[in-house]
Amino acid sequence: MPKYMHHSNEFDYLEIRESEFTIHLDPNLENCLSIKVAARKYQDQLFFDDVAPELKDDDKAGKLRKRGTLKRLILTLPTGVQNIKCELLPHAKMDEAYNVTVSLDPPKAVLMSATNWGIIRGLETISQLIFQTKTKKNNPAENDDGDNFFGIRPVEIEDAPRFTHRGLMLDTARHYISLDKIIPLIDAMAYNKLNVFHWHLTDDQSFPFESEVFPQLSKLNSFRPELTYGKSEVRMVILYAALWGIRVIPELDTPGHSYSMRHIPNLLTECYDTKTESKNGDFGPINPTKATAYKAVDSLLTELNSLFVDKEFHAGGDEVDFDCWKSNPEISRWMVDRNISGNYEELTNYYIRRLHHILTRGHNRTMIVWQEVFDMGANLSPKNTIVHVWKDINHKHGYMAELAKVTDAGYHSILSSCWYLNYIDYGRDWQKFYECDPRGKPVKDVDKVLGGEICMWTEFVDDTNVLSRIWPRASAAAERLWSQMQASNIEEFVHRLEQHRCRLISRGIDAEPVNGPGYC
Amino acid sequence: MPKYMHHSNEFDYLEIRESEFTIHLDPNLENCLSIKVAARKYQDQLFFDDVAPELKDDDKAGKLRKRGTLKRLILTLPTGVQNIKCELLPHAKMDEAYNVTVSLDPPKAVLMSATNWGIIRGLETISQLIFQTKTKKNNPAENDDGDNFFGIRPVEIEDAPRFTHRGLMLDTARHYISLDKIIPLIDAMAYNKLNVFHWHLTDDQSFPFESEVFPQLSKLNSFRPELTYGKSEVRMVILYAALWGIRVIPELDTPGHSYSMRHIPNLLTECYDTKTESKNGDFGPINPTKATAYKAVDSLLTELNSLFVDKEFHAGGDEVDFDCWKSNPEISRWMVDRNISGNYEELTNYYIRRLHHILTRGHNRTMIVWQEVFDMGANLSPKNTIVHVWKDINHKHGYMAELAKVTDAGYHSILSSCWYLNYIDYGRDWQKFYECDPRGKPVKDVDKVLGGEICMWTEFVDDTNVLSRIWPRASAAAERLWSQMQASNIEEFVHRLEQHRCRLISRGIDAEPVNGPGYC
Repeated sequence: MPKYMHHSNEFDYLEIRESEFTIHLDPNLENCLSIKVAARKYQDQLFFDDVAPELKDDDKAGKLRKRGTLKRLILTLPTGVQNIKCELLPHAKMDEAYNVTVSLDPPKAVLMSATNWGIIRGLETISQLIFQTKTKKNNPAENDDGDNFFGIRPVEIEDAPRFTHRGLMLDTARHYISLDKIIPLIDAMAYNKLNVFHWHLTDDQSFPFESEVFPQLSKLNSFRPELTYGKSEVRMVILYAALWGIRVIPELDTPGHSYSMRHIPNLLTECYDTKTESKNGDFGPINPTKATAYKAVDSLLTELNSLFVDKEFHAGGDEVDFDCWKSNPEISRWMVDRNISGNYEELTNYYIRRLHHILTRGHNRTMIVWQEVFDMGANLSPKNTIVHVWKDINHKHGYMAELAKVTDAGYHSILSSCWYLNYIDYGRDWQKFYECDPRGKPVKDVDKVLGGEICMWTEFVDDTNVLSRIWPRASAAAERLWSQMQASNIEEFVHRLEQHRCRLISRGIDAEPVNGPGYC
Repeated sequence: MPKYMHHSNEFDYLEIRESEFTIHLDPNLENCLSIKVAARKYQDQLFFDDVAPELKDDDKAGKLRKRGTLKRLILTLPTGVQNIKCELLPHAKMDEAYNVTVSLDPPKAVLMSATNWGIIRGLETISQLIFQTKTKKNNPAENDDGDNFFGIRPVEIEDAPRFTHRGLMLDTARHYISLDKIIPLIDAMAYNKLNVFHWHLTDDQSFPFESEVFPQLSKLNSFRPELTYGKSEVRMVILYAALWGIRVIPELDTPGHSYSMRHIPNLLTECYDTKTESKNGDFGPINPTKATAYKAVDSLLTELNSLFVDKEFHAGGDEVDFDCWKSNPEISRWMVDRNISGNYEELTNYYIRRLHHILTRGHNRTMIVWQEVFDMGANLSPKNTIVHVWKDINHKHGYMAELAKVTDAGYHSILSSCWYLNYIDYGRDWQKFYECDPRGKPVKDVDKVLGGEICMWTEFVDDTNVLSRIWPRASAAAERLWSQMQASNIEEFVHRLEQHRCRLISRGIDAEPVNGPGYC
């Protein structure tokens, strides 16, 4: 739902014949690769055979008035803008605004934006404005040339996203997700105007990233030798996403959730049997007291940051288990020396601060961290730290209070607590995703809330169900993140969602039914 | 888990080379088509590249002792049986028993059964006994001929199902399910030794069956003209399932759940506006007072029964809504005349008794009905009536008490209450499916409990997710229905289930993860 949309008349429309319709780029847009790629993709995708009769505009056929024929869509710059801002890579401050004008006399459809990102978002909007009027199948006699007929209403649209950070996090460590699914997942993100793919690349269970610095990680701790992501595959994902205006932010979760990195020598904490006071062979979180640990992490970050070009990097920092640290006598001595004996939160903070230094100074990245880092008082600089709120899943008062605390402390933040799509309930469970608003009370400095991320943790998800589990449930969160707060009527959204599911299916995404009986 | 299985020694095994292994049919089995089809299918499917190392028998490599090489599996008759009972169509009393003997000296594997159904079930068992020992990938040098190596342990198995009715119900009316999914669904049923495909063919929402007697039904009340099942498609499903020993039982649900049949004249009840006492244009359940209704139903049953060859027919009978009947003055008068004024349960019973007469006398079928028919006291003959218990979903005391009541009244029954797989919960929700036992207390005449059916109602399921939602969750119910009650250890079952999911995936079934992080 765009920011501003006005139909002068509900029933006037321009007819479009699929075979005769073209997307025309103004000359000053023609050198922009991502616009050309998007225009080519949408040339096919503008026309969606919308089969659900209750949604079909030709049900109003008696009232619809054809007022002309539209032959092309013009992509151009807004008045007064001389050159398209054509960026190769999307970024946190990219401009996704665009305008659309469809007018009757003469028949004309124009999509304007000062940036390639705006053009891409606008093309998706146009594809959602075009409706089917009649099909070959329904009217074989009338359509003896075998063409499909579509329509578009005169409209004025001014649009820009409400939130700049509209993400989807995919965990590829609990189950491996193949590129056969990640690529369509990214397509579907674009169809929902999401713009951040947060890649939770590694975790305790597996390390599927093929590191050249530490090749043993994926060799020994991927699930299988072939269930890994090589550098060229990672690069492919990043570039493919970039063409859609989707940033790819990797996560290397430390100091916890790092058990799959245990084959890097002198990185993880060696746990002790508390009775015998000898090493028990197990490993805990990264050992913050060892210089070797920081060196190894720095090496991995260097490697990851040479691939992942985004200015932001997700450093994790959640759910650190102190038991192994507590068991380790070297760590205890180190803590005594530092006068923080027994204060394991402060030990975590020490690690996080050094990591922050490496990431921000050494790698010039902004560091995204899960909320525990803030909660434990790591006290990082707000100017290059973003706090990712995820706790109190589905408990609105809890996560909104946390968002308020985080932003009051001067941090930018993103919210995921209400968008844990791995948790499933029978029926229309998307409704709660739709009703969640990251800028609600008691948050005061709402601009500090950059947006949110849908989370898909994959304990119970793999290639067999990842797309159908995410889509179209994620569409509910995606509209919340793009559209104005006023777009909140559930009954209106049900229809958009139902139609959008069918649109996703027509584009090859296995979006599951979410509204009850029906069909596409 | 077979009824009886004994390994003389856990570590002895016979080696099998995939390329050199054959399934040999004794001459007296060679004329049985379904055995030949199954043997050909299993020739490929015996060898499952089991990649989950925690399940892999070669983890015990140090202990495993190769005691010879097995070159073939012999399919034969049990001692003393002269001729294979080769039935074209599976039926309620079919014999699925089989024995397996794998012996070391000389290396020999024999699958014996007196029937083709037993051979088919036994082949699935053999495929689950064979384990991978090493792969080309793991041992490229050793396996320079590119072969895969498998093993099988010496074993004695005597097996037969605990329940004769082991079903899966699929609703194809809330969403259409294409044959592209129904065919693999039937394959997967065979891989889980299920033997009844209960096809909930029609409902209020749609009538996808192409009737020749009433062609308007699928023309006007299928979701789309192409979302229908033609007779040749239905026949194909029935024959395909028959080859696997799976019966196909159709359901024509009446007198409720029949709104999609409203275009048959004088069938459904015309509803009245109670204030104006005039028809409001809506329709309710079948009108039991009209002779035309029985004639139409009889015609449809004739058509259906000429296709669906099973002796049993599911006639529905659930959730009859009395409001429309109450509003209709003709029905009220009729009920006054019959001295049952205001007793709508008795009106239902009247309909059901006439339907029972048509089905059992006219069509020589046994009538399966949902439990309401019993609950309302239709008082049908137990000898050709089976009561399908479905209420009190997940409330054990409720449905077990109902099973007791039904069987105490002399009826055979099947249970579904605990196997509504359309309802989903996060995590290992299959555990409750596994723990459900249809022959528990307070059922006295346990032999009257024929088995159970997994139900997949499709309000929130269509082609995008039907296979991944059913499998492998349905495997938990399937083992309960096949195996002895003693097979109930959850931790042992977790491993079988995990391995079976991977086996299903290797056979092309998108079985979703159900046990947490891992891979196939």
